[in-house]
Amino acid sequence: MQLENYIRDIQGFPKEGILFKDITPLLNDAKATQECLKILVESLKGQKINKVVGAESRGFLFGMLLAQELNAGFVPVRKPNKLPYETISASYDLEYGTDTLEIHTDAIQKGDKVLIHDDVLATGGTAKAVCELIEKLGGEIVQLNFLMELTFLNGREKIKEYNIFAALTY
Amino acid sequence: MQLENYIRDIQGFPKEGILFKDITPLLNDAKATQECLKILVESLKGQKINKVVGAESRGFLFGMLLAQELNAGFVPVRKPNKLPYETISASYDLEYGTDTLEIHTDAIQKGDKVLIHDDVLATGGTAKAVCELIEKLGGEIVQLNFLMELTFLNGREKIKEYNIFAALTY
Repeated sequence: MQLENYIRDIQGFPKEGILFKDITPLLNDAKATQECLKILVESLKGQKINKVVGAESRGFLFGMLLAQELNAGFVPVRKPNKLPYETISASYDLEYGTDTLEIHTDAIQKGDKVLIHDDVLATGGTAKAVCELIEKLGGEIVQLNFLMELTFLNGREKIKEYNIFAALTY
Repeated sequence: MQLENYIRDIQGFPKEGILFKDITPLLNDAKATQECLKILVESLKGQKINKVVGAESRGFLFGMLLAQELNAGFVPVRKPNKLPYETISASYDLEYGTDTLEIHTDAIQKGDKVLIHDDVLATGGTAKAVCELIEKLGGEIVQLNFLMELTFLNGREKIKEYNIFAALTY
């Protein structure tokens, strides 16, 4: 199975000049989803994970599947004012301005073995902010994995001290 | 296992006077998540499902698990301008104003057997809008299921022509 066949190119989304990689055909196919999950899990080579952290909102999709497959808890990282309990936050730069992510303070315990998942590694801003949040709470980051990496944006550079895996690269 | 023990009450979120039911302790526990998934699947009594539709963003969480468990495709319903391909939309009333949801036009095929999932059945506005989208595309709604139903909001009334199941009721 070629997973590439389940990723659709959308020209000019979300704005002019951007080629968007649409994962909805992959999600729409149970076997392609299962195959992708298998590739992500195999990349961990049996390393123990007890928390999977996924960023809102596309990181929730495979984040939950990975957590169940690894018999780990799932931790959502969200935009400001979405998480109801006590939180800490981290900010990161966008093309114009900044954005902020939050995590519940009780979501990660000191020493937790953490897998971070998101759908796309682009500029690495989100990933770096998530790493900050987890380390503030005392978690140990075992790997960051992604459905795809847009290598031309060089996001890997921002998180080079960690293990990184992407099922697909462009 | 008492799933109620994994739902946390947060007083005054998102605003004064509201008692918010926080599902993050459930997500954080792999066994509680698995048990909840099992209850949702059993409620279908073996009925054939080939698409699971989940609403952004908490509907993505168990929506993906249900889709994989049922060997069905997953279809995200999202806020405006988030889905990159051709969409149709449906609007619903909020306390003040309206909100809109979108679905990809190629996400559901005529005759698809559809399970709709969301975390909470509250006023039923979101659920009703999702039903509209699916029926516009020719899908057949087998069931709507929810992690919890807030019965005092009477959302069930808006979608009474459908099969409805909630793992927890308040």
